[in-house]
Amino acid sequence: MRGDLHLLTAVEAVGHILDGRLTSEALVQACLDRIGGDEIHAWACLDPDQALDQARELDRIRKRGRATGPLHGIPVALKDIIDTKSMPTERGSPIFAGRRPEADAEIVDRLREAGAVILGKTKTTEMAFVHPTDTLNPHDPLRSPGGSSSGSAAAVAACHVPLAIGSQTGGSVIRPASYCGLYGFKPTRGVISRAGVLQTSASLDHLGTFARTLEDTALLTEAIGSYDPADPASFARPRPRTLMGARAEPPVDPDIAFFEFPFHDLLDADARDGIEAVIDALGPRVERLPVADTLTGLVEVHLTIHEYEFVHHLEETITRHWDLLSPTLQPVVERGQRISEAQYQDALGVRDSAKAFFAKHFDDFDAILAPSATGEPPLIDSGSTGDPVFCRIWSLTGLPSLTLPLLVGETGLPVGVQLIGGAEEDDRLFRTAAWMQRTLQDAA
Amino acid sequence: MRGDLHLLTAVEAVGHILDGRLTSEALVQACLDRIGGDEIHAWACLDPDQALDQARELDRIRKRGRATGPLHGIPVALKDIIDTKSMPTERGSPIFAGRRPEADAEIVDRLREAGAVILGKTKTTEMAFVHPTDTLNPHDPLRSPGGSSSGSAAAVAACHVPLAIGSQTGGSVIRPASYCGLYGFKPTRGVISRAGVLQTSASLDHLGTFARTLEDTALLTEAIGSYDPADPASFARPRPRTLMGARAEPPVDPDIAFFEFPFHDLLDADARDGIEAVIDALGPRVERLPVADTLTGLVEVHLTIHEYEFVHHLEETITRHWDLLSPTLQPVVERGQRISEAQYQDALGVRDSAKAFFAKHFDDFDAILAPSATGEPPLIDSGSTGDPVFCRIWSLTGLPSLTLPLLVGETGLPVGVQLIGGAEEDDRLFRTAAWMQRTLQDAA
Repeated sequence: MRGDLHLLTAVEAVGHILDGRLTSEALVQACLDRIGGDEIHAWACLDPDQALDQARELDRIRKRGRATGPLHGIPVALKDIIDTKSMPTERGSPIFAGRRPEADAEIVDRLREAGAVILGKTKTTEMAFVHPTDTLNPHDPLRSPGGSSSGSAAAVAACHVPLAIGSQTGGSVIRPASYCGLYGFKPTRGVISRAGVLQTSASLDHLGTFARTLEDTALLTEAIGSYDPADPASFARPRPRTLMGARAEPPVDPDIAFFEFPFHDLLDADARDGIEAVIDALGPRVERLPVADTLTGLVEVHLTIHEYEFVHHLEETITRHWDLLSPTLQPVVERGQRISEAQYQDALGVRDSAKAFFAKHFDDFDAILAPSATGEPPLIDSGSTGDPVFCRIWSLTGLPSLTLPLLVGETGLPVGVQLIGGAEEDDRLFRTAAWMQRTLQDAA
Repeated sequence: MRGDLHLLTAVEAVGHILDGRLTSEALVQACLDRIGGDEIHAWACLDPDQALDQARELDRIRKRGRATGPLHGIPVALKDIIDTKSMPTERGSPIFAGRRPEADAEIVDRLREAGAVILGKTKTTEMAFVHPTDTLNPHDPLRSPGGSSSGSAAAVAACHVPLAIGSQTGGSVIRPASYCGLYGFKPTRGVISRAGVLQTSASLDHLGTFARTLEDTALLTEAIGSYDPADPASFARPRPRTLMGARAEPPVDPDIAFFEFPFHDLLDADARDGIEAVIDALGPRVERLPVADTLTGLVEVHLTIHEYEFVHHLEETITRHWDLLSPTLQPVVERGQRISEAQYQDALGVRDSAKAFFAKHFDDFDAILAPSATGEPPLIDSGSTGDPVFCRIWSLTGLPSLTLPLLVGETGLPVGVQLIGGAEEDDRLFRTAAWMQRTLQDAA
């Protein structure tokens, strides 16, 4: 096996590894070579010796005919808010510089059981919130890769690694995936355990996945879901088989809903044209739905819960280390501190209504179509990782959300298209996404 | 779907449930009907309402097209040393009467994730050691079902439930499975997490599985293995896919080793004849190997570790509740208390040598053939659950061990045949077992 191993998809690579045509060691070495000096600043911690040791061990297991896993020998990057015993976990903040967790997060256990190689930790915005990293967008070094899972998205887009884990509380998986031209997936709340991951908002935090193909995204997601009572959101039921979903044909052509949210005014012209072109191409499969007044406040409701929970979960850290918070984060914290308990409880109540409202649409529709971001990635000079407005409602309602890199903006940079599915129907969402992708390719 | 639903195998039943021809509710109700008044005393706790609620929930999940698991809607029995939050866990001892654990054992989480219905808790000998339960062998009410997983084996043999979990420290899965005419499997040490299960011997305790077919045993085992750092024996690698193994064809006919252990003198004449008939039928595939003197002491080494660790792990319980220990257990405890730290350390050293000795045989052999028990199940009047002598070495070395109900003793009662595999090669062991079963059927 020769050639540009770092370009292999995970599905391809694991096939070659199990067939004996490729070693995990060669794959990991190719990824390390590709990373080189990490000019795009994607990595918070990289331990080549440790990764190569894992790879050689997984190669020995395969050669001896012992059990292999769905990610056997595949390198994976972890956002640096996910605890790892063997590497520091610094959460993008000087407050946690040198922090060494005593235990791996549940998701790390699941990755090891799946045979993955933990390649390293990727840069996160400060405590997975607003203050940017120094990570560059691999498509244009003047642009942001998005946040908060900046390093995870950039590393996969730069072909440093085929797969990465990120997290989303507002739009931190879907938005950077859109900006970096990737598939990004935030599963139904409760599919993946968050135990051992920095808690920024118990109600809104989700783990999610990045890859360069739809099947790879589905493969990684399926490998890491688990029921874990240590995460109160985790449910004691079977996990959706997303890879099977990505490979399935829908029994009939799917029906897709498109809500005309007022915040669609925030779309750049090219993104607006792009999503309209998708709707046109899908023709009668898409139904435009009006948006009731009660729905327009959901973005604000999300923000209230996010900021309120952030300051309450992290109160001790914030109080003790105020001077170590960035000037970007401090005003956000102050805003959160002004939110009253009553406002927060009201917001949770509206959240529950919103969940019920959207849930009933999945009796008639397979998915909701939406923009992933306002358009092309923002300039780094803007100081922002971009606006998560198109993701907030789906983080709020806990529905599975997938972005596909289907559009190109006016300067040639990627623009994603988002599909949202019914709760615990992540497999159906992947099936619908694969259908949509095929349909748009045929139409092109 | 009509008929004797309680006779369905788990593989059959889950197929029917996913196809929509059978509901979990109907299956669970059929099992509850079959259990009736539990004349064989297999159950320590049965909660029909709770089980039917679980079944209906799993039926709703299937009808709504949500994710299903490999054991979707299948009732499973748990030995009563496995902690369950929703049912008492009394460990077969009055010391723990009414005990309600605060959390489920890891294996219970895995069962729920697989879609299983927790039907109830099955009777265990006192703290999974020597003192019998009142459970009757379903094949002959004058006979013991074996121990310590007495209720799990009896419940599956009586078709109360297709699948059960037990545990083995000496021979507590293989022996009762042999006596009850079942398949029983003790996986490689570390495949299934023991977190949340009564610890009687950290070095020797294993969880294991019971079923009425080889495939069912493999299905259940595959669904419950997990990497869990809470169990120090658990390994951070992929789990063997036992169901795939049970369905696979070996690339060439397997090679099988048979050790002439001196304790084979303990075999009843019918069991001796039976195992010789198996060896004859397999012909040149079986090689008889001499036993070095150093190996003959391994049974004693196992006993030393078991009794020493039992009294040390449970010291507080034993001291505080001495009068609540059975007269059967008290002398065993006193023997354990007389074992010195040096004797124990010596035993651990011999254990390590034995592991290394057997490990190298799996370069040349696919499996080791051995008796599962001394013969037919003992009479209840003997006061014993039978001699685990043929299982001790494999509990000591942590190797995967499988018993198949291939023989019939002189009074028509079942006698098992044991196959032992290489560490973490549980899938290869199932493949060899399926081959052996086919070969013996063809020879018959």
